[in-house]
Amino acid sequence: MTSDGRIYMDYAATSPLCDEARIAMEDCMENIYGNASGIYKTARLAKQHLEKARYDIASILEAHTDEIYFTSGGSESDNWALKGIAFKQSTKKHIITSMIEHQAVLKTCDFLERCGWEVTYLRPDNDGCISPDDVRDSLRPDTALVSVMWANNEIGTIEPIPEIARITNEAGIPLHTDAVQAVGTLPVSVKESGVSLLSLSAHKFYGPKGSGVLFLRHGTAIEPLIHGGEQERGLRASTENVIGSVGMAAALKQAVKIQKSEAVRLEELRNKLLQLLTNELPDLTVNGSIMHRLPGNLHLTVPGVDNKTLIPLLDLNGVEASAGSACMAGSYMESHVLKAIGMKSESPHGTLRLTIGRDTDQKTILEAAKRIISTVKTIRGISYV
Amino acid sequence: MTSDGRIYMDYAATSPLCDEARIAMEDCMENIYGNASGIYKTARLAKQHLEKARYDIASILEAHTDEIYFTSGGSESDNWALKGIAFKQSTKKHIITSMIEHQAVLKTCDFLERCGWEVTYLRPDNDGCISPDDVRDSLRPDTALVSVMWANNEIGTIEPIPEIARITNEAGIPLHTDAVQAVGTLPVSVKESGVSLLSLSAHKFYGPKGSGVLFLRHGTAIEPLIHGGEQERGLRASTENVIGSVGMAAALKQAVKIQKSEAVRLEELRNKLLQLLTNELPDLTVNGSIMHRLPGNLHLTVPGVDNKTLIPLLDLNGVEASAGSACMAGSYMESHVLKAIGMKSESPHGTLRLTIGRDTDQKTILEAAKRIISTVKTIRGISYV
Repeated sequence: MTSDGRIYMDYAATSPLCDEARIAMEDCMENIYGNASGIYKTARLAKQHLEKARYDIASILEAHTDEIYFTSGGSESDNWALKGIAFKQSTKKHIITSMIEHQAVLKTCDFLERCGWEVTYLRPDNDGCISPDDVRDSLRPDTALVSVMWANNEIGTIEPIPEIARITNEAGIPLHTDAVQAVGTLPVSVKESGVSLLSLSAHKFYGPKGSGVLFLRHGTAIEPLIHGGEQERGLRASTENVIGSVGMAAALKQAVKIQKSEAVRLEELRNKLLQLLTNELPDLTVNGSIMHRLPGNLHLTVPGVDNKTLIPLLDLNGVEASAGSACMAGSYMESHVLKAIGMKSESPHGTLRLTIGRDTDQKTILEAAKRIISTVKTIRGISYV
Repeated sequence: MTSDGRIYMDYAATSPLCDEARIAMEDCMENIYGNASGIYKTARLAKQHLEKARYDIASILEAHTDEIYFTSGGSESDNWALKGIAFKQSTKKHIITSMIEHQAVLKTCDFLERCGWEVTYLRPDNDGCISPDDVRDSLRPDTALVSVMWANNEIGTIEPIPEIARITNEAGIPLHTDAVQAVGTLPVSVKESGVSLLSLSAHKFYGPKGSGVLFLRHGTAIEPLIHGGEQERGLRASTENVIGSVGMAAALKQAVKIQKSEAVRLEELRNKLLQLLTNELPDLTVNGSIMHRLPGNLHLTVPGVDNKTLIPLLDLNGVEASAGSACMAGSYMESHVLKAIGMKSESPHGTLRLTIGRDTDQKTILEAAKRIISTVKTIRGISYV
């Protein structure tokens, strides 16, 4: 809870900058200004900081240092992975993905379809899980890439990435995973999982916005998304954002350090929150798998209320949450994820994504539950009485 | 000069973060963490900061606020401008640019050629100036875009953008300009110049690396480069980098505030440096137009020395400079710009780009000249004696 009593419950949208990242960045901002592609001392110092950040991130992901490419965030990484693989070759015109991917993947697929590629969209089960068998059944001789997210940004479902990777690796087709919601929250190893490309975003694990990574396994041919200078081994042009990369590495190190204990703590708090809410609002239902789920994610259907009322009224009552993904938060579009898991929109209902994080404690949960219950009851009172 | 006596002369590659930007960013880093696309208080506060930055930048460029799109830098803006215009339409397959553009434009053109577009590369005169008449003569019914830089990053030549814009606007073809080297250094108005798209990069005017802008005139249809969420009016997906954008706006405001006096000061210092150098090294020649030139740019041919020796030895002697562009600085490739302005590479020579900036003063110039002269004489002594 902040000093003014507000409760932030939208960690899946973004997280505050942690002290470790902030301090590392402030140090850089005062002392490091060289262009990391230069060859003189000031430039080499910048390069050292950049490469130390790359090394730290590679170590955590169990990747080689030269498989880590700095980008401006998860959306760029996703766009790059899909377009980069698609445009690099000329014969394979088929891509497999899922219906519940982030818009950065889905809208990129839409673009590629307009450019002549064919895309298969796998439907998840009602829990939001993609079946590895469905991936296998969709493979074609002209499949260029499979892209399935590690964990869903709305309903928090964790997908069976290692199983899918076994299938794609057997078939010799690269697997990309949007791990934006997973890295820092779950143990993520590119070695163990066997993926060929992986996107991550710093601001989801208490790092700065505007910094991300594309992991690209050795031997995976890719066209740049941003052509130009020779930065990032000639594959991602732009003067290197040393401050952002250093902040990202510091944040990731800290996130991984406390990952296990945080996962346990958040899961307990999340379950407590669900229990408190359903005690008073027994008609609430949870969307997405309970078993295969991000520890801090609670995604609810709230019958008899409307998102257009619920989210702003929660805000007025000091609870900051979303109806769905942050990238769509401004709009009240129907969620493609909920549609894909078979949610009917016949009866009036609201959806509420409550995602908790490092600053959430027991007290916050109790107070949040109280406010959410009272807000829902108020709306229902107005609507139904 | 820094406290350890080193002299930074590579401001065209990048500039140190100014206090105004650093303070604005540190404030944001401590207090603003919301996802600017959310709708609750923390998010709205982030949005306010973002939109204030957008307003400030728009005001300076004499653009409408909703013509300013935040990107991760100049390279992304250049890539977006060219690919975004090219992929948005299906019939016009011709692009006009110049032979001396930044690699972010040239490599993008190369990619578009591989995708089926045709590109005309205009040759500059020996001063590095692009002729508006050549632009007119190259226009075709299927020309989709003209892209000519505002000022060259190697030899500092300022191109006749308003004249070119008059021609392209008459023909109804959008003109993009890479103004990365110009914004903050020269007066740049999109209203007066008449361009349809303009790229800028924060770290060239003492703002943070990893932040840039694409100006896109109302009514110019463009395909996103980064597809996904609804950020930036649906045209550039990614959680908004508020810290970077706020730092960029603060830096630009400061740069514009002192632009006129700095231009005069830097031009005097630059001319003084040239005079000191040629007094002792009369065979030095200046590359690029003297008349139409960025005030802080001095680009020299140094006969009888080799870049592979000159730049590292200058570094050892405490002078930080480049042979050409920063994006190519790691390599010693022959410059495409020098080739385009007709420089012969028959006799052994070095090229030296000395670019000065806000921390350069009279004393620095005197000391720099001394060190450069002595370094060149040392190399020549070794080479020739």
